[in-house]
Amino acid sequence: MLELYHYEPYANSMKCMVCLKEKGIDFVSRYVDILKFEQHEPSFVALNPNGQVPILVHDGKVIVESTVINEYLEDVFPQVRLRPTDAYERHRMRVISKWNDEILMPSVSMLGWHSRFHPFAKNIDEKEFQQRMRRVPLYEIREKWETTRKGAFTEAQLNESRRKIRWMIARMEEALSDSKWLAGPEYSLADINTYPQIEGVTRLYKEFWNEKNAARSIEWLARMNERPAVKAAFALSRFSNAPGQARDADKTARATA
Amino acid sequence: MLELYHYEPYANSMKCMVCLKEKGIDFVSRYVDILKFEQHEPSFVALNPNGQVPILVHDGKVIVESTVINEYLEDVFPQVRLRPTDAYERHRMRVISKWNDEILMPSVSMLGWHSRFHPFAKNIDEKEFQQRMRRVPLYEIREKWETTRKGAFTEAQLNESRRKIRWMIARMEEALSDSKWLAGPEYSLADINTYPQIEGVTRLYKEFWNEKNAARSIEWLARMNERPAVKAAFALSRFSNAPGQARDADKTARATA
Repeated sequence: MLELYHYEPYANSMKCMVCLKEKGIDFVSRYVDILKFEQHEPSFVALNPNGQVPILVHDGKVIVESTVINEYLEDVFPQVRLRPTDAYERHRMRVISKWNDEILMPSVSMLGWHSRFHPFAKNIDEKEFQQRMRRVPLYEIREKWETTRKGAFTEAQLNESRRKIRWMIARMEEALSDSKWLAGPEYSLADINTYPQIEGVTRLYKEFWNEKNAARSIEWLARMNERPAVKAAFALSRFSNAPGQARDADKTARATA
Repeated sequence: MLELYHYEPYANSMKCMVCLKEKGIDFVSRYVDILKFEQHEPSFVALNPNGQVPILVHDGKVIVESTVINEYLEDVFPQVRLRPTDAYERHRMRVISKWNDEILMPSVSMLGWHSRFHPFAKNIDEKEFQQRMRRVPLYEIREKWETTRKGAFTEAQLNESRRKIRWMIARMEEALSDSKWLAGPEYSLADINTYPQIEGVTRLYKEFWNEKNAARSIEWLARMNERPAVKAAFALSRFSNAPGQARDADKTARATA
């Protein structure tokens, strides 16, 4: 049995949802509501001590880290191929996925927590918040919640995140200058892994997302949004989202503002 | 032709040197002296716009990012296998390599730059230093040089790095509780990729590296140090280093203190 524990079709959860849908693999969807802190419940932490979604449970074995989960899916279910056959392009796929994990994702995440999660976090009752925080396994994540609650990301930190997003989009523009997909002529995990963050950029850094800075990336995103697997992943949302529409965190922000 | 551009058998360069030696692949060694800032020379930046070692040049194609280089070597030269055959263990190999890149490596690096590179960096002539910095392609690396020169890593930053090192060693102790190698019973890229940083921990965070905190990791390191490939990688040093001996940066520190 294959079970995916995930939140909304958003950020790292989205990467694995799209990968599974591209491969057409049946899986049991286990929804973990991070706004109810279900990822820090003992039953979930027993599966992933880091208390983070997504995780994949395959015949009882726990597979963690979204980028690694997608390589695992490729190792175990190679029928629909998402790793380029050419070794150089496969290296490009991994480099882009790595830059996504280390540079793009933390930057988009900071902008998102700052502008969208802050209204939610600041309205949690103090006693409840402290109880919640005691259960967060990772120090970095606890710090992120506390900074978000206080609205205390500095302008220097936010600008550094914007700079990293610009850097990554410049790399994407280069990659897309001579091929349709990020790792080369073949659609691959590089596209899938990067997609949720770029989808976030369109909402969180609107002033940079334009024809002048991101012409090829805008076309690439349109191609991504048209893929049936992407639409199928969005259809798993509890908020009935679709590509390009307002998203869970936006709705949360409005509901709690 | 296969060319590895690398510095000393140290940090990320070491990962690829050991991998090549384990596989017994002939390669041309291209030494890049980072203390002479050769990684920011136009001829090198033409190969890797990020201005970082190591890189692999395979029949003219440039392969970047040490962790990805090692997966590439595995894809192209699979004869000596360094990725576990079991898909679960292969996932463990990638998770540990990822935690190494994102958590352990930056932490050990900060301690090393703070204590070993500072004496070197502070003694560079101001005009020369500014000239050097103008050629550094990556903003983060420029920031790191400037902070190191000023000796301005804060105690809070250094403590956060020590905390991350403790976290990673706790994960290693868990992994080694039921197997000899980090990803399972098979020696793999997880061991190779983690080795240079743990070798750094023994010198940079001595007070934590003991039987109480790291008993299994200490035994694992001893097994690593005995491997012919590790010894062969050390033999490529211009400082005639060997496992467990004083290293280039230490010597630099002494020479410039």
